[in-house]
Amino acid sequence: MIKQLTIIGVGLIGGSLARALKRAGAVDEVVGAGRDAQHLQQALSLGVVDRIETDLAVAVQGADIVVVATPVGATETVFRSIAPGLSADTILTDVGSTKASVVAAAQAAFGQLPENFVPAHPIAGTEKSGVEASFAELFEGRRIILTPTENSTPQAIIRVRAMWEQTGAKVVETGVEHHDDVLAATSHLPHLLAFSLVDTLAQLDAKQEVFEYAAGGFRDFTRIASSDPEVWHDICLHNSSALLKMLERFEADLDKLRQAITDNDSDYLLQVFRRAKAARDQFCGD
Amino acid sequence: MIKQLTIIGVGLIGGSLARALKRAGAVDEVVGAGRDAQHLQQALSLGVVDRIETDLAVAVQGADIVVVATPVGATETVFRSIAPGLSADTILTDVGSTKASVVAAAQAAFGQLPENFVPAHPIAGTEKSGVEASFAELFEGRRIILTPTENSTPQAIIRVRAMWEQTGAKVVETGVEHHDDVLAATSHLPHLLAFSLVDTLAQLDAKQEVFEYAAGGFRDFTRIASSDPEVWHDICLHNSSALLKMLERFEADLDKLRQAITDNDSDYLLQVFRRAKAARDQFCGD
Repeated sequence: MIKQLTIIGVGLIGGSLARALKRAGAVDEVVGAGRDAQHLQQALSLGVVDRIETDLAVAVQGADIVVVATPVGATETVFRSIAPGLSADTILTDVGSTKASVVAAAQAAFGQLPENFVPAHPIAGTEKSGVEASFAELFEGRRIILTPTENSTPQAIIRVRAMWEQTGAKVVETGVEHHDDVLAATSHLPHLLAFSLVDTLAQLDAKQEVFEYAAGGFRDFTRIASSDPEVWHDICLHNSSALLKMLERFEADLDKLRQAITDNDSDYLLQVFRRAKAARDQFCGD
Repeated sequence: MIKQLTIIGVGLIGGSLARALKRAGAVDEVVGAGRDAQHLQQALSLGVVDRIETDLAVAVQGADIVVVATPVGATETVFRSIAPGLSADTILTDVGSTKASVVAAAQAAFGQLPENFVPAHPIAGTEKSGVEASFAELFEGRRIILTPTENSTPQAIIRVRAMWEQTGAKVVETGVEHHDDVLAATSHLPHLLAFSLVDTLAQLDAKQEVFEYAAGGFRDFTRIASSDPEVWHDICLHNSSALLKMLERFEADLDKLRQAITDNDSDYLLQVFRRAKAARDQFCGD
């Protein structure tokens, strides 16, 4: 049971976490914190949070658990702002899509990695953003990746794990670097490609028609290009080395496909397409 | 009213067309034709077609309309096979995703472009394939692009248009080259990128984990990589010049994004992501 949960950044993820924990009866009071008073007021009206606070150091006072759910680019600033209000007992965690950058932010803001700090990343979300898009079921059956630091205590890890389990999610642990590599492949690169393709098409003379003639496949393929630009800007720049590594690998493979089309290399094309279909059918189902 | 409709290739598209026209009461008899007797037998058992025939020249005899719905790579062979059975009155059309190659196939097979030949492309489909995936509602509200040749008669165009309107689709006309350019952008390139990305990830050491950690966004983004490899192999090779043109444009823009990430060029990234989101939100809705 969490007596006071402070969520900094009450958007899709922070708001859905608050809703899920309230639904599970796992929290007494949720404090919503952030810079934008109007936005917080909306979260309060929706019943997502019980109290709001724009002074972050005040917001974390008395909290059992503090969850930082802002875009990752704001993490270090947030850590610095809350530092004066954190007690030694307060568990600190986050929901950032990039973990090395969050650990570096904690190191910079606190001087050392706090024992009660457990970085985390829920693998869940939609292309929507904002508290109005939040819902209690978002994390059901989804994975939450914890990337504890060398200083994280077992007790802190257990508290963060227990919190997420209350949302219906499956909690796993992995290393920071491995997390960032895997997420670059499955999430950051796909978002970059979707944004890039849609922007390329939007520059075409036949733009209007191009989008009008787009069928269901295109709609699905580009859905993630409707994601929050600021959030994904932050992610791309805060996981740039893993992302660039995957991007180079992707571009090298795409070049081979381009060459195969140029050479009318039927076998190569078939081989790649068949392998891809087999892998996706095996792992993704529908 | 169509007395006899012969569909060559009774898969997702051919099967769905048959179902839609039967539902609308717009056809008396549907003849399913193709090389694979077992597959045709399945279409017959499902009630999608009324009669089956593996001899294509026989299958088209007596037909008011013949629809070629095979993968585009088979089009010329099919045209050659049906030529002896076609009467001067029979309307000939197809559903191929690449139109220049289909027109070239007709030119090669018939020696000239028949007056009753109207190339067409329904912008509809799913990542599923085969007659078992077909359904009558597939074309509702979707666009059908007709690309009449200089020889297509107004009467032939009217017949093909009327047939498709019975499925609930909206029929438009455009030029062959323009069709191939637009579809390269909205359909052929996205499929190539999805196949390519999934294959790249499937080669990673962490393959298993990579796919396990993939969230809903990845599932949507890669859904088209579950499409039929043979069909898309044919499309990529039969619209290669338009596809390569779009691919080069995409790669050039992606290179700029890669450079921006390398340079930590925050403004450029934000600008591209914002433009992409705005374009997609405007044109695609959800």
